[in-house]
Order: sequence, then C-alpha cells, then structure tokens
Amino acid sequence: MISYETSQNMISLLSIGNVRSERIFLSSALGRILAEDIVASEDYPLYPTSAMDGYAIVHSDLESSETLMIRGDNPAGADEVGRVTSGACIKTFTGSLMPKGSDTLIPIENVQVEGEQIRIVKQVSCGFAVRPVGESYRKGEILISKGAKIGFAEIGVLAGINRVMIRVAQRPRVAIIATGSEILDIGEESRHAGQIRSSNSYTLQALVDTLGGESVQMGIVGDDKAAIMERFEEALHSSDIIVSTGGVSVGDYDFVKHIVPKLGAEVIFKGVNIKPGQHVMVAQRGEKFIISLPGFAYSSTVTFILYAAPLIARMLGVENPYDVIEATLKVPFAKRSNKSEFTACNLSFVDGRYWVDFEGKKTGSSAILTNLLGNTGLMICGEEDGDLEAGTLVRVIKL
Amino acid sequence: MISYETSQNMISLLSIGNVRSERIFLSSALGRILAEDIVASEDYPLYPTSAMDGYAIVHSDLESSETLMIRGDNPAGADEVGRVTSGACIKTFTGSLMPKGSDTLIPIENVQVEGEQIRIVKQVSCGFAVRPVGESYRKGEILISKGAKIGFAEIGVLAGINRVMIRVAQRPRVAIIATGSEILDIGEESRHAGQIRSSNSYTLQALVDTLGGESVQMGIVGDDKAAIMERFEEALHSSDIIVSTGGVSVGDYDFVKHIVPKLGAEVIFKGVNIKPGQHVMVAQRGEKFIISLPGFAYSSTVTFILYAAPLIARMLGVENPYDVIEATLKVPFAKRSNKSEFTACNLSFVDGRYWVDFEGKKTGSSAILTNLLGNTGLMICGEEDGDLEAGTLVRVIKL
Repeated sequence: MISYETSQNMISLLSIGNVRSERIFLSSALGRILAEDIVASEDYPLYPTSAMDGYAIVHSDLESSETLMIRGDNPAGADEVGRVTSGACIKTFTGSLMPKGSDTLIPIENVQVEGEQIRIVKQVSCGFAVRPVGESYRKGEILISKGAKIGFAEIGVLAGINRVMIRVAQRPRVAIIATGSEILDIGEESRHAGQIRSSNSYTLQALVDTLGGESVQMGIVGDDKAAIMERFEEALHSSDIIVSTGGVSVGDYDFVKHIVPKLGAEVIFKGVNIKPGQHVMVAQRGEKFIISLPGFAYSSTVTFILYAAPLIARMLGVENPYDVIEATLKVPFAKRSNKSEFTACNLSFVDGRYWVDFEGKKTGSSAILTNLLGNTGLMICGEEDGDLEAGTLVRVIKL
Repeated sequence: MISYETSQNMISLLSIGNVRSERIFLSSALGRILAEDIVASEDYPLYPTSAMDGYAIVHSDLESSETLMIRGDNPAGADEVGRVTSGACIKTFTGSLMPKGSDTLIPIENVQVEGEQIRIVKQVSCGFAVRPVGESYRKGEILISKGAKIGFAEIGVLAGINRVMIRVAQRPRVAIIATGSEILDIGEESRHAGQIRSSNSYTLQALVDTLGGESVQMGIVGDDKAAIMERFEEALHSSDIIVSTGGVSVGDYDFVKHIVPKLGAEVIFKGVNIKPGQHVMVAQRGEKFIISLPGFAYSSTVTFILYAAPLIARMLGVENPYDVIEATLKVPFAKRSNKSEFTACNLSFVDGRYWVDFEGKKTGSSAILTNLLGNTGLMICGEEDGDLEAGTLVRVIKL
C-alpha cells in the first residue's frame, strides 16, 4: 500500500487538460469560478465626481472671498452640468459629475445660504469630497483574476462594468454509482431486514454540488458483474469523473475492483495506508477518471474529500478544495492504527486560535456518518504519529 | 446619532415573529436551514451488522477448536441469513446482517480455508468487526437540531433515515430598490456622462442569496417622490424586508428618508455613528422592515452586512449571519474618524492565527467596491479607538 502523501502526489500529477470554459449570464454566476481575467476597460470614475452634497467651487476663490454666488443646481444624473467660474459655485450632489472649472466640493454643512449666495463657514482643502478620475480603478487594471470564486463583491464589480455575460469554468460532470445488493434507495420500501438504506449517493451529490461540480445520479447497481460493467460504461460516456461506492474490498462480491481495469482504465493506485478507506482505487481512461470508494458512509465521504474533491477543484482551475489549518488539541487523542488517520472533530475558534475536540463524536466502525454533522473538520494524523497529548498542534481539513 | 453598539442592540430587539417554515424535497435542501429537529425513529443499525469481510462465528468456540465448518454464505443484502451453531461458521460480508447465534466476525485475513472448513490463524476479541445495534445512533436521539444549516453530511443522514421531505425555514423575501436619477442599469446604453452604472442592486442580490434569502429586484427608480412612494408600497406587498439604496443623505433630492415615514412605517433609527454609511435608516411597518442604505457601493454593502444580514438570519432562525473573529494587525492602521469604522481588509491564516493587512486596498471615498473583492474581512474599529499599532488584536467580520 502506498502512503497518503504518495497518493496525494499522484493525484496532483494526473493530467487533466485545460480548464473548459463557458459563457453564462451574470445572474447565474454566483459561486462559479472565473475562467477569464476581468480587466477594466476604462477608468472609474471616468470624470471627477462629487462624493458629498454641497457646492462645487474653485478652491483658490477661498483665499479672496468668503461668499460665492450660486449659479445653478447640478443633481446627480444630470446631462448638462454647467461651468464654475471664479466667484461662483454650483450646488452639486453625491454622485454628480463635478462641473467644469471646479476643483473642490464644499459640503452643505460647511456653508450658510444667504439668498443667492453661500457664505463659507468652515474651509476645506483643495480637492475635498471629489472622487478623482480612476479612484476605484484605472483602465487596464485586472479587477478580478481567473480562478477567483465569484462572490457578492465580484457580482457587484461585474455589474458595475456592465458585464452581462461572464466566462466561467464549466462544472465538471461527476457520475455517482452506488454498488451493493443490500442497498435500499431513499423512498423505496424495505422488503426485509438485510437491506440498508443508502445515504452515500446523496452525501456525495451534495459534496459535488458544494464543490462546484455537476452531479449525475446513476443509481444503485447490485453485486452483478455484467450490470456493474454496463453502468460504468454508461457513466463514462456522460461524465468527466465517475465516483462509485462499494465493491473494492476483499469480499467475494467486491466486483468493482476487478471491473474497472476491464473497462480499459489504467489503475493509478489501489489501496492507500489510510484510515478510513484503505481500499480506495483511482483509475484513468483517456481524459476520464474513475474513483472507486469503499461502501461505508464515513469511509466513502472521507475518501471523496481526499481524492475526488482535489480533481474537481483542478478541473475548475482552483488550487485547493479545502483549507487545511493548524489547530490545538483540547483533549488527548488515541491513535488507533499505524495508518494516516482522518478523524471527524469539532472545530471552534476561541482566543484567536482554532481548537479541536471530539465531544459527541462516536467511536466505532467507519459507518458512522453522523460524526460529520455540524461544524466539523477532519483531523489529520500522520502514519508515524502515535497518541497525541492535549495541547498538540494538529492539521485539520476545514469542511 | 446613536452608536454602533446601540444600533445593533436595537436590531436584535426587533420583534420578527416566529420562523415560518415549509416542506421541501431533500433534493432542494442543501444550504437551507432546518425548521425541525431530526429525530431517529429507530436504532441504527437495527441489527448487529458485519463491518468486514470474513466468517461469523461463536467466539467461545475459539477456546476449544482451531477449525470451524463453513455452513454457507451470507452476502450483503440477503434475506435469509442462517444460524451459526457451535463448531460452525457462515461466510459473511461487509454490510451483511450477522447470522443468528454468532457474536464475532473473524476477518478473511485471519483464517486459512481448508476445503469445507476454516483454520483460525489469528484470534480476535469477542464482538470483533460487528457493528452493534445503535452504533451510529439510538431511537429517539436528536440527529440534527432545528436551526442547523443543511450541508453534505446532513443530506446523507437525512437520506439514510429515508426522509424525502424536510421542514426548513422559508427564505425571507427581500425586495431591492435602487434610487437615484443618475443610475444606469446593467445592459442599458449610456446616454450621457452623468449616468453611473448600477452595481448596488446586484451586489445586494448576491448577498441576499448567499445568506439564504430570496431576492426580489424592484429595479431603479429616479429621484421622484411619487415614483419612489409607489415603488416602496409595491415592495411592501411582496416582501418581508425592503432594502433600498440612496436618498438618505442631506441633499435636496434625498427623498427616501422623507418617504419612509409617510408610508406609515415607524423609524427605528436614522443615522448611526459609523463609517461608512452614517445615514443608514431602519424602519418597521407591521411585520415588515425597511432598511434604507446610502447610495455609494461600499457604504451600501457594508451597511447591508451590518443591518440587513442579521434580520435575514433571525428570520431563518440563525443566530449570526457572519463569524466575528480575532485577528492580529500586520501593519499599523490609521483611524480616519471618531466613528466606529468598518474597513475592508485581507484576512490570512498563518501559524495558527488570523492576520489582517490592507495590501491592494485603496483609500478614498466610500464608493470603492473593489476593496471587498477576494478573501476579505471587515475590520471593526470602535468609536473610542485611535490609530492602531502593528500587532494589535482586532475584531474582524469574516465575509
């Protein structure tokens, strides 16, 4: 069995080709990954603009005079702005263009209006409350770089430069196949006690969605070689990545591990010295990947996070699907194996640091999905680590 | 003007009524907020289940005998499981029910098969590799609590207990109105230089979506009293919260601040000693809220985060819309006013701590939305704070 570190290295070396892109409307862009640099096509603001409500003036007038004649009104959005000449001012509002000839905005709060003129009560510096050309950005500036995730501010900036259509990374299509004759689908009526309600397909679909992929549910297939082969072949036609659960262990009915090579796929690795999920298998056929996960709920979820998530991220042009952070153990931790272990933990942020504990987490088999509920991280213990004392700094995958 | 702390207190005291709920399909539940406790209706697993591939045995047999007769095969999903009697075993696979009479699973790796019998090569403890009844959870246990955000693990657990329909909090409807005669909508052709491309409505829509609300775009309305009044009245009929931008400052065309009271709404507060966004106004009419934000892009975004986001969160049954964390200033910070200031900053996590810097952030007016791009936080400086030295611990709203 290879080590966790070797397996991660092999995943990062897989050739996945270029990021494929598509053009979408801004209204669908939230959460997508940019596939182009967004460059300013002009300065913003393009003209000096008022940042307050007040009067546009020539600053040098303040040296010789305490009063200025009001020569009109310049509401925001006006087409004709007028020109300020020496000894005069134009009333100008937040967001209005500064009238030609003016260089300073004296706020309403700083003047007294006396009929047709204003009296300056409190002086300001030259250029006060004027947004200079290019205050926000200059023509040619890269505003948002390729690979950025589009959040609320990105949406606003794109709207502000009138970008209706945006080039983003296509969502990788991830086909999900659950194998196992015992599996009962959601909504299906149980016929006998030997059937187990499926959760894997839906957990994995939610992970695919969260990571920005597009999931394709291929359903459940029993432990039947021909049926599994057919379902995988079908999935290869309609997806970039196949993720399957079950059928990779040492049992007589674990057919997936035998079938994948028969599909003409090259096995990149089979078996990693990790807990949970040591039987995980990654294979490649052409530009498509097959990631065969164990069947237990906790194992399949963790191995998806370790092996499928980085591939989905790379196809989107994103470096890492999850942040790995340092945290401090609040309690001792008993290591259970000589493998790299991934343990569901509670993650809290108190006194400027992240803390790890296991309150409410159950120990037992790798079937316990409930351990991943809530504000959870995956604590990483290395192969060589032994039991850890409270206070130890550990690395945690932040989910 | 009231202080930031007072304004937040007033927001938290607003009576918003009970969380309204609705039933949705599991397939739409990702990211929604649970409006019911999810309780286990039975133990899981309901019967002792095999956690590995091997042979189901009676553990006490190991004391007297090194070999056991193989009495059949128990694949996962089988209806008839058989019974293990003393001196015999049944081949049993991961996920299979344990046959009656057996108490231990001896893994394939621990035995040699000799014709019709197995020879135990390596002993195990009693109960080995058997998932006991209720290992994951017990009947009556609360699996997921009301108010939890539904993530991938919640989806999996809900699927595992066969919950097709889920009760979640209804998305609060948030109507967005942009006011200002200067505003040019996205896609609209510019007619003259005095027009400014709108971004507020789209930034705020993205924020509403991100927070779990449902946005209703009411469009742009010019600085016209009757038109503004009509648009607000329309929005009150179709939403729980109205968020407007512009029209709350001291200019002659700032009509929103006058119109809101005329709609029969009670002004909760108008004006807070914060920067940006001091003119923000919050009002209530019956069960509906009107949050009137300033017009500048940075001001409207920040005040939305401070005043609209907590209301949306409360309507969903969520305590806080954002985490407020402690971070360390990497560089000195010059405070610009005697207000509570909210400054866009870069947030990094290095050496177990969060760090704040302002690299690439521009100083200038409150119009600079680009400062909120990327991995940004809002650093909070209190009214009484002065300039801050590098190394100071500061509070940051994590966006």
